Amino acid sequence: MAFTKKPIKGMTDFLPADMALRNLVLDDIKRTYGSFGFSQIETPMMEHIENLTSKQGGDNEKLIFKVLKRGAALQRAWDAGELDGLVDNGLRYDLTVPLARFYANNKDALPSPFRALQIGPVWRADQPAKGRFRQFVQCDIDVLDDATNLAEIELITATSAALLRALGRAGIEQITIHVNDRRILVAAALQAGFAEEDVAGALITLDKLDKIGFEGVSAELLENGASEAAVQAYLGLFGEGGDTTSATAFCSVLNDADLAEVAANLDQIIDSATALTADGVQVAFDPTLVRGMGYYTGPIFEVTIDQLGISIAGGGRYDKMVGKFSGEDVCACGFSIGFERIIAVLRDAGVSAASDETVQGGVAILVDPKAAGEQRMEALQHAQQLRSEGRQVAVLPMRKNMKHQIASLEAGGFTEFEKLYSD
Amino acid sequence: MAFTKKPIKGMTDFLPADMALRNLVLDDIKRTYGSFGFSQIETPMMEHIENLTSKQGGDNEKLIFKVLKRGAALQRAWDAGELDGLVDNGLRYDLTVPLARFYANNKDALPSPFRALQIGPVWRADQPAKGRFRQFVQCDIDVLDDATNLAEIELITATSAALLRALGRAGIEQITIHVNDRRILVAAALQAGFAEEDVAGALITLDKLDKIGFEGVSAELLENGASEAAVQAYLGLFGEGGDTTSATAFCSVLNDADLAEVAANLDQIIDSATALTADGVQVAFDPTLVRGMGYYTGPIFEVTIDQLGISIAGGGRYDKMVGKFSGEDVCACGFSIGFERIIAVLRDAGVSAASDETVQGGVAILVDPKAAGEQRMEALQHAQQLRSEGRQVAVLPMRKNMKHQIASLEAGGFTEFEKLYSD
Repeated sequence: MAFTKKPIKGMTDFLPADMALRNLVLDDIKRTYGSFGFSQIETPMMEHIENLTSKQGGDNEKLIFKVLKRGAALQRAWDAGELDGLVDNGLRYDLTVPLARFYANNKDALPSPFRALQIGPVWRADQPAKGRFRQFVQCDIDVLDDATNLAEIELITATSAALLRALGRAGIEQITIHVNDRRILVAAALQAGFAEEDVAGALITLDKLDKIGFEGVSAELLENGASEAAVQAYLGLFGEGGDTTSATAFCSVLNDADLAEVAANLDQIIDSATALTADGVQVAFDPTLVRGMGYYTGPIFEVTIDQLGISIAGGGRYDKMVGKFSGEDVCACGFSIGFERIIAVLRDAGVSAASDETVQGGVAILVDPKAAGEQRMEALQHAQQLRSEGRQVAVLPMRKNMKHQIASLEAGGFTEFEKLYSD
Repeated sequence: MAFTKKPIKGMTDFLPADMALRNLVLDDIKRTYGSFGFSQIETPMMEHIENLTSKQGGDNEKLIFKVLKRGAALQRAWDAGELDGLVDNGLRYDLTVPLARFYANNKDALPSPFRALQIGPVWRADQPAKGRFRQFVQCDIDVLDDATNLAEIELITATSAALLRALGRAGIEQITIHVNDRRILVAAALQAGFAEEDVAGALITLDKLDKIGFEGVSAELLENGASEAAVQAYLGLFGEGGDTTSATAFCSVLNDADLAEVAANLDQIIDSATALTADGVQVAFDPTLVRGMGYYTGPIFEVTIDQLGISIAGGGRYDKMVGKFSGEDVCACGFSIGFERIIAVLRDAGVSAASDETVQGGVAILVDPKAAGEQRMEALQHAQQLRSEGRQVAVLPMRKNMKHQIASLEAGGFTEFEKLYSD
């Protein structure tokens, strides 16, 4: 078979300048989350196929890279003639399903509540597009076994700080944290007159609001069989008919006694997070925020950079998923940063590791290939001396086309060049 | 299907204390290699199956986790009824094959020579055993397009420094770098009387010397059909009959005119590396060093911790592999650290991140769940203050069994505890 030079479709080779920027941003994120007491953990990048296809992952389950069985087990499955039987593992499509397995498996060794930081690649066999990759890095923080809203408040405060630190490199100092609660979403739809079995569909449509506007949402709801009255009542709640200044105000018109507590909780989260975050962070109740993942059970969040019109992080409370693994419910709440999007924003703004003042450039000592052994040794020892002083130094053979050599070294982060010609 | 709590066989969940130690050691390695001007790069963790099965990977090619095609392509392959046709990708089993593809793909954007650092997981469907995992991290440095022995000298100097830095955490300050050259190995076998087609087999047997001794090697060579005379002549070279004090001395008895230059080069590498490395590093010519991978073409190295009797890193020059991808030969030379072995050595020695004096423990503020909103807010603000002073702080609900809570937080790296009882 022929060799193939390009990486697999939708996957990327990262060159030194790419990695330098990625490492800077990862460091921003790790330091910030570390300061909030999140402990880094790691799970294997491959998971049991039955865990990945447990209906927790929504549409992502259709995008799994599946891994073939091996040896005799593969042969048996092949002989049995069933395609599904050939597979035992898959590459993870997010960090949440593996975290739920991890917690169920290691609960006794972990504090309660437990604050986890996960950074690592996930895989989705999606159609590649600008900014959409088949292997990409996710940065997730999760609080497990904390039923109090300290979890939400610290998640929002920590994620805001991490985002501002990273985005500040591009001069972006304004972000909005949209906050809602899944139970409010459901109550609003029921109140408007949607039947219980139609609520999930209505939410999928409402989720498109920022793309298709109120008119588009209205049209799609009607198309899907909702009554004029229900649609009008529903959209009225978010528009002129409703009060969206706070969760409590919004819920006061909904006939659901249990909702007052849900709303008060959400407003406390919003008020606390507002007080604890920097001036550029707006924490806002947004009754139209849906978040796609079906596993959310309470508060949900999404972060947007309004000046760019993009979403950059999201999360929420999912109190029922860990129980799917352990048989015992464990409440949980998480926030996931779209790492590749941040990198794209920084690159678009011309940010590189070289523009970071704390990053010192490397020294290249270029040695004439005709230099005698003693001269080379001097260069090598000089390099060791510079390294002991904290510099990054490479001793390299000098090329005939030294101008090109230096230019390409500069692209990789070298800023000083010493030339050793043969005596 | 049932959920499965345990990770996939041979793969590992890393808890906070595990990750803290891994990150410390990764940092040792990154800093050291950075100081030698190696630039971090990354390739996708999945590779084209044709690249992974190109006969460059030796026995590792039998251990590939293969990834199923998707969608219509999968259906077509299934209909065609051939098992091999179902697969288009695989998980990488090392970092060298992907590096060769990376370099062939990105050559024009990289300096010449190019010094690459790669750190990342690889997968092998091997039988799991103590210290042998199915997903494990490799740390590789490689110098591409450098035909001079500056490459070997700096690879050895850098790797020694990285290893001493990491192993020093366990008080290990003595390592041996065994150095040989593939061409000397071949010449010695030919000189002893092995036929050209039997040399590879003889090397496979010689490679077992440290496990089965001279007697075992002798027996296996005879069993494989070598003559008494050849075996005696061969083993004589390494024993009393030969001079192994330097490559030049060893090669002086071999009838191969080209070998003088090979030996002089190797001795220069050994002498230079000896001068440049710390006192605890012994750089030694070892004519019995083989290294398994068939792709090596020149000098080869292996690092042992003699007090533990284990090998911890290995590498060599492989001038023909990149050409397999690009059609154009590019000389290359690399060194790979057995990261998981280092971790095992440190753990066996009782080393943890908590024993590192530069790592400051975290602060847990435990808040009585009955505390009023104002009190909680004070705790949250106090946490922000401590964070601004560089501390790692988590605000957590206090558990009834606070003793257990504190013990498990301590296991995760928290050292200070503040308790906020409700007024």
